[in-house]
This record gives sequence, structure tokens and C-alpha cells, in this order.
Amino acid sequence: MAMAEEFDIIARIFAPLAKDSGALGLKDDAAVLTITDDHQLVVTCDTLVSGVHFLKDDPPASIGYKALAVNMSDLTAKGAHGYVYTLSLALPPDTEMDWLEAFAGGLSEAQDLTGISLIGGDTTATSGPFVITITALGLVQHEAAITRLGAKPGDRLYVGGPIGDSYLGLKLLEDPSLANTWALSSEDVAYLTDYYRRPPIATGAALLIRNFAKASIDVSDGLVADVEKLCSVSHVGADIDTASIPFSSAARKALSAAPSLLEYLVAGGDDYVPLIAVSETSADLFESEVAEHAVVFYQLATITGSEEVRVLDDGGRAIKLKSKGFSHF
Amino acid sequence: MAMAEEFDIIARIFAPLAKDSGALGLKDDAAVLTITDDHQLVVTCDTLVSGVHFLKDDPPASIGYKALAVNMSDLTAKGAHGYVYTLSLALPPDTEMDWLEAFAGGLSEAQDLTGISLIGGDTTATSGPFVITITALGLVQHEAAITRLGAKPGDRLYVGGPIGDSYLGLKLLEDPSLANTWALSSEDVAYLTDYYRRPPIATGAALLIRNFAKASIDVSDGLVADVEKLCSVSHVGADIDTASIPFSSAARKALSAAPSLLEYLVAGGDDYVPLIAVSETSADLFESEVAEHAVVFYQLATITGSEEVRVLDDGGRAIKLKSKGFSHF
Repeated sequence: MAMAEEFDIIARIFAPLAKDSGALGLKDDAAVLTITDDHQLVVTCDTLVSGVHFLKDDPPASIGYKALAVNMSDLTAKGAHGYVYTLSLALPPDTEMDWLEAFAGGLSEAQDLTGISLIGGDTTATSGPFVITITALGLVQHEAAITRLGAKPGDRLYVGGPIGDSYLGLKLLEDPSLANTWALSSEDVAYLTDYYRRPPIATGAALLIRNFAKASIDVSDGLVADVEKLCSVSHVGADIDTASIPFSSAARKALSAAPSLLEYLVAGGDDYVPLIAVSETSADLFESEVAEHAVVFYQLATITGSEEVRVLDDGGRAIKLKSKGFSHF
Repeated sequence: MAMAEEFDIIARIFAPLAKDSGALGLKDDAAVLTITDDHQLVVTCDTLVSGVHFLKDDPPASIGYKALAVNMSDLTAKGAHGYVYTLSLALPPDTEMDWLEAFAGGLSEAQDLTGISLIGGDTTATSGPFVITITALGLVQHEAAITRLGAKPGDRLYVGGPIGDSYLGLKLLEDPSLANTWALSSEDVAYLTDYYRRPPIATGAALLIRNFAKASIDVSDGLVADVEKLCSVSHVGADIDTASIPFSSAARKALSAAPSLLEYLVAGGDDYVPLIAVSETSADLFESEVAEHAVVFYQLATITGSEEVRVLDDGGRAIKLKSKGFSHF
């Protein structure tokens, strides 16, 4: 198919994603939105670059899905639900309409899960790799947004999903022979690569975070790095027992075959799960609410007053980590 | 200087641009904003790619200035004033801190003129050209936003600045020998290249647009193309006399030397000035208000019922245009 024209791209592919009347059907240069006084607006922005945040040959639907999922992860961590988003695409000149249609299909899937919808954006040409930028706007009840600040010694630290699966999925896509090295079944490989391409969207977690979290962040740059970010602003710390880190069964198999993977799993990033501090007194109620809702939260550690984040091995000794998290440079 | 690190970039260079308390000092993953019931939120998004929307060797301050100016142009056309924006940068690996500081200086200048401020964003690395995406949020009194729709036959069409200077500036930067061809002085060249690099920010125009415009758009893709966009949604048209198009004295000199430039000036784009329809009955009052404020608006044409936009020469004959506007592909 021929290279897509901007007008066609908007009218055929993206206008169907604009469900909010304030989007003006993507037919104007700006959207006009009404925000009621009882809500605050939460705004986040994430950019994905081909070859950095996704692989050039990833299915286009998964790239679209992931672009929205990583932004939703930030909104969820604030306790906000998705409202609307802008989408900027810098497209290589050989981008085809079929590809864009599949990409938009992935956005649509993520929209249906979260209720967020497209309100505008921009489409440009680039001689470089495909660059996607989403600015996502969420809504939260007035004064109910949860920030990184607020953890105290004694609080319980919970993480809202498995750690390291995205790292393993990426490595398997880069080098499929690692499946043998790590003694993984084809189902394990499918699960892990799918995690990398389509990180989970924790529908329902925002409500629990808003109601129970004292401090919150999403794990995107690596578990240890993000625990440190949450702790450092409140001058607290945490001792993370390796046995408390939620690893999937596939990750456990890989860890058995190659124990040195541990430090990569806790630093690999791209997990896109919430990490929250809950006070000791409300921890039992929180856990029973988690059990009632279709969400997962695993207790990871207890906040300490030490201003230090450590990962402890089975013998309680601190593990020396080469890297604590993903840096974009 | 060494390649900048993301943490340094945010703390040293961009945190000073975050003037709104809702930005949380750029220390969190999202901003939290309060929008009062008496306002609506206007959202626009523009992406600038190096080599497409600015030249690689443009001064970094002008690139930062322009990135905000083109977004402000969309907000102004809606009658909104600037509130906050997110900034995404996909940076080539050789980007230096000095360069980014100067770039941020240009953003700061545009912030000071408009009152808009930074609330968040993302910084990533790319193997391709520098890509800047801004999503700008503006505020407008409830139900006061002006869209493209609403022009009627008999309305006066006004344009809020000169046409074609950006096109001439770009051509002069690409080929300085054109200054001789077009018989331009060094002051003319400086004026035109500066227009390309730093399109005007029509401070004060938003108020007049909100109070007087029935329909509004900004001229960014070429005068004729944008007049057509404004007209087509209301099934109206316009006859634009060449003599009514506001050309700067520098552009007039170039047109005298090379009359065939005319169709490029009306199609070149990048003008970033508002284009509005004002009813015949309020046109006199509008013009007296324009004279009182430090803004410019030139009467360009009268809206017709013909559903056709034409540019007429001195003899009243329609000029056949090869291209009506800028396409990003």
C-alpha cells in the first residue's frame, strides 16, 4: 500500500478512537473539555522510540497497546482513572496504512480496557525511527491523588504484579536460544514475550490505590530503582527479601537455571505495575479488598527508617547490585 | 560537554520552567491540576522534527521558542490563554547540556510572554533526528471556546499577522544567495529568517478572538489551505484579493523582484497567525478594539456563499494555484 496521507490517517484510522465529544471528532486543532470541580486532572507523558522501548518488528497492535499501557500505569499509580489522551506520531516514510490500522487497533483495545479515549495529536514524518508520544489526562477525586511522598517506617510495601517478566521477554526476543539456556517451555516463552509487548493494565487498581496507598509510584525503571525513588523522598528505606519478590513461574524457572539473572530482573524495568506503601493498621483491610477485586498486590517489604534500600538473599545478606535500574541513555 | 543524563536534564534544566505547583517540581511521574468549573480546558498537540519544522543548525533558543509558539498559536485561535504543557524530547546521542540549556532558555522566553508553564514530560534517546512534542493545555471561560465552525456569508475574514514571511525566511536560510535575487537588504533577511525561527506569539489576541470571532483557525499549513478549512466546515467560501493579503515590506520587495513567489507565499505555511470570521455588524467595534490593544488584524476577505476559496489578481481574475498548502508528507 502507498504511504499514508495525514488527512486519511486522521479520518480513517484515528477519528474512530475519539469517543469524547470534546475531541470535536479530531476535526479541529484543539479539543475542548469540561472538568468538574469535584475532580482534579492528572497529567502524564511518555515517549516510546522504536528500537528502545519496543522492537521494530513487534506486532503493530502490541506497540499501540503498550504506548497506552505505559501511560495508564502512571495514571493508575496516582489513583486516577483514564480520561483522554493526545497522540503524536513521528513516522518513517515507509509507514503503511495497514500497519497504522493495526497500531490503532492496539490503542483501541487498551482504550476499551481503561475508558480513556483519543482527543487529538499530530502526525509528522521523520527520517529516523518511529517515535510515539502520548500525553494522558486522568481524573481523580479532589485531593485524592497519591504521590511518591508519604511512606513511613512500619508501612507495608506492595507491588501490583510480577517483576522481571518484561526483561526476560525482551531478552528472548533478542536471542530465542535463551529459551533452552533457561529451560523454558514454549508457553513460558509466549507468556514472557507477551508481557514485554503488552504489559498488563491494572484495571481496578486505581480505586484501591486511592483508598489505601499513602505513597505510590509505578515500577517502570526497575524494581530497586523505583523502591528507592519512593523511599528517598520520605527519607525511609526497605529491606526486600528475595523470597518476597513476586516472580512468575516462568521467571522462577529461568532463575533456577541461571541464578545470576536475579539482579537483572530487579533492575530490568518495563514492569509497569504499581508499587505502594500501605499503613500497617490498614494492611489487613487492604488485603481483603484486594482479594475481593480482580487485582493482585504482593507484599514486598516493610518500610524501615534506614534511608537504604537493600535486596537480601535467603540468608538475610544484602546482595550487591551492579545496576539498580534502567537509564534511558 | 558530556552527553546529558536524564536526571540532570530534569533537575538542572527543566525544573526551573515548572512554575505551577501542580507540576510537583517535576519530581513525580504525573502532575495534579485543579480546573475550576467556570473554565474549560483546551488541549492541543504539535510535534516538531529537526530538518522538517526547524533546521538542525537553528539556534537552540529559537527551536525551544518555536516549539511553544506553534502550540500557543492553536490555543490563541481557540480564544484560550496558555496554562500548562508537557514536553517530550527524543534526543540524538550527541546532544550536549549547553545546547539543552539554550533550548530551555527559548522555552522560558515563550513562557514569560504567555504565562504557560511546564508540568511534565519525557526525555528519551533516538538514533534519528531530534523530535519535540508539546501537548499544551489552555483555559477558556466556559462555553467561550471558538472552533472552526460558524462562518456565514457576509462575515469579514481577518488574519492576525503577515503572510509568507516564514516561507521566505526558510528559503533564505537554505540558499542565502536568494537575498540578491529578491533584492533584499540584510535587515530584510534578518527579519524574514527570524520570522521563520521565531514565529510571533499574538499575546492579547485570544481575548479579542473570544469576544468577536464566530469561527477561528490558525494559519499554519498555508493561508489558502487554512481559509479552505475554516470555510468548508460551514459550507461557505471566500474571494481573497491579492491586494488584501498582508505582506511585510520585505515580502513585497521579494514579490516585486519575483512575482511568481505569490503562490508560494499563500501556500508556504508556518505563519502561525490567527484567521477569524467576524460578523459584519460587529466588524467596526472589532476594528476599534484591535486598534486599542497591541494586536494586529488585517481584513482579508468577505465570506461568500459559494463554497469556493479563490485568490484573485489585480484584475479580479482567479489565480490557478499549484498547491494550496503544506503537507507533512
